[in-house]
Amino acid sequence: MTPIEGATIGSVVVVGTGLIGTSIALALRQRGVRVFLADRDAAAVRLARELGAGEEWPSDRTVDLAIIAVPPRYVAQQLLDLQKNDAARVYTDVASVKVLPLGQAVQLGCDLSTYVAGHPLAGRERSGPAAARADLFLGRPWALCPSAENTAEALETVQELVTLCGGNAVRIGAEEHDRAVAVISHAPHVTAAAVAARLSEASDTALGLSGQGVRDVTRIAAGDPSLWTGILAGNAVPVAEVLEAVVADLSAVAGSLRAFAGEGTAVGGVTELLERGVRGTGRIPGKHGGPARTYTVVQVVIGDRPGELARLVQAAGETGVNIEDIRLEHAPGLPLGAAELYVQPEAAAALADGLRERGWHLPV
Amino acid sequence: MTPIEGATIGSVVVVGTGLIGTSIALALRQRGVRVFLADRDAAAVRLARELGAGEEWPSDRTVDLAIIAVPPRYVAQQLLDLQKNDAARVYTDVASVKVLPLGQAVQLGCDLSTYVAGHPLAGRERSGPAAARADLFLGRPWALCPSAENTAEALETVQELVTLCGGNAVRIGAEEHDRAVAVISHAPHVTAAAVAARLSEASDTALGLSGQGVRDVTRIAAGDPSLWTGILAGNAVPVAEVLEAVVADLSAVAGSLRAFAGEGTAVGGVTELLERGVRGTGRIPGKHGGPARTYTVVQVVIGDRPGELARLVQAAGETGVNIEDIRLEHAPGLPLGAAELYVQPEAAAALADGLRERGWHLPV
Repeated sequence: MTPIEGATIGSVVVVGTGLIGTSIALALRQRGVRVFLADRDAAAVRLARELGAGEEWPSDRTVDLAIIAVPPRYVAQQLLDLQKNDAARVYTDVASVKVLPLGQAVQLGCDLSTYVAGHPLAGRERSGPAAARADLFLGRPWALCPSAENTAEALETVQELVTLCGGNAVRIGAEEHDRAVAVISHAPHVTAAAVAARLSEASDTALGLSGQGVRDVTRIAAGDPSLWTGILAGNAVPVAEVLEAVVADLSAVAGSLRAFAGEGTAVGGVTELLERGVRGTGRIPGKHGGPARTYTVVQVVIGDRPGELARLVQAAGETGVNIEDIRLEHAPGLPLGAAELYVQPEAAAALADGLRERGWHLPV
Repeated sequence: MTPIEGATIGSVVVVGTGLIGTSIALALRQRGVRVFLADRDAAAVRLARELGAGEEWPSDRTVDLAIIAVPPRYVAQQLLDLQKNDAARVYTDVASVKVLPLGQAVQLGCDLSTYVAGHPLAGRERSGPAAARADLFLGRPWALCPSAENTAEALETVQELVTLCGGNAVRIGAEEHDRAVAVISHAPHVTAAAVAARLSEASDTALGLSGQGVRDVTRIAAGDPSLWTGILAGNAVPVAEVLEAVVADLSAVAGSLRAFAGEGTAVGGVTELLERGVRGTGRIPGKHGGPARTYTVVQVVIGDRPGELARLVQAAGETGVNIEDIRLEHAPGLPLGAAELYVQPEAAAALADGLRERGWHLPV
């Protein structure tokens, strides 16, 4: 309920009340913005309204900003329809690809001065309004692809939307955006699915040997196939290019391994790919903008019963150390597990000492 | 310090004091077993001793069990050397492939009656004795590949080793084991590296759009390249087979996407792979042996300061609900984040109500 000083967004319409649209609606409602909702599926609007995301849209009502949250290939037509009705002063969308809707908007003759293409990077494995959260965009990147025709007012309004939702605006060209999400989101999704597809053919005994590694690699492959087919088709060539590069690397490794098995030839090509992989993981930005994986892990043995974790985190809090992340190590069928507390490296020793003093067991 | 009733392992030698060898040594020491340490690298033995993993091995000393924790291709020669010196009653190894060491042991003329091949499934991204933990094997699968020549005593002794370390013994043939780990560990590692390799070529702007998905997919690719080259070379043909299947799926998707971009042909093949991926993720066993991903997530907004998480987990404990897992959502540069509490589905409503009653903010 805290309006931003000098704010110009008093009312919006969210067209498409899926996960992203409804989450934006919830975030704006918390900041005191009047939110109208529209969706071709009346049940989705009803559910979003029941979740407190806003009110039904009287279609003759003009708003400050229209947020188009429909699948990529429907964005431009939706934009045209809204502009014909003078529905809003400014328009944006949230589709996960940007070249396609921008190109179609040009073809359809949309007014590009009031349309700023956008893409909040905040997906989940789940979809639909029921999975929506007002804090979905907190601290997340939100790509904006301004075009030369954009008015200053349109740009400022969409920038304000990002700020109201707690996102970090990243200005980027549409082509560069689509190549970027192919590398950091779309191709990883397909690759995770291809690894997971092997599991659907494996024996129960084989699956019983699964550890955390394969769980992590395949987690995103649980996403909705039809939703993802639309995303991939909307970014077809950039995704195909990344997949072809992945295929070339994997084929080379498979070939090296077969040659090694047959003739004992060197496997230096395998090491070379693994080394490139290590360099790549090191480039992913971490929580506070620095390099990833800079936290130190402090492990503590805990029992699998109510209150045990509470007592541990309480004890950790008493040491004055801020916990950056927590992972629980799964121990199927056993009463004991291990909590991994991620902290700034300089705080690890104080945390470990403090927990030992309070009677906690830390593995040597 | 709790010996198992009827235990026959009074003393062991761990040959190779890396991550796995030193972790076994630490676990056995906690159960009162006398542990001797050996490694061709004197510094590694010294570090393991300083970590409390055991004492130096007087090489004329015969022990109950020798645990060979060296890279796969050195296992059989090490076994032969130990058996020539009558170093132990029973022998096992921990190599991540099993056909190679068993085959070489036959070729070298080792005594197979006292050698039971084993493989604890408990790797980490880190390696070396300093990363070792006594609880590394708690609740984890530990593959055993008995051969027809094994004596009952040898089998019982190695089974007892697994129990002492808290692992879950899984009996499996050597060929099936190697195919299984190719699917659930080795090929996923190479694939994660191939995805991560793309990041090493991407722009900083592109990497700035990274979310949790690409972090999860590439996490294991941070592992030691030379260690992993040895593992992959030791399981060359099964890994190549899985990679070739992954390549076929990814090539088909890339081809579908290119055809769609060029001629607008159907992308049903893309959906089909994604659907197989969803089925595959659903087959990974969860914490209590049932299907994975059956927990319900309760989200709570928290501040990024010491004690905040402690207060939340304390409050959750007061509701009497057991927290199965916790994830903190990263919000770069912002004072607020969200904690995701994973609980049994039937407990979610009670937890949410209890937390709201205690003043916590749960996103709608």
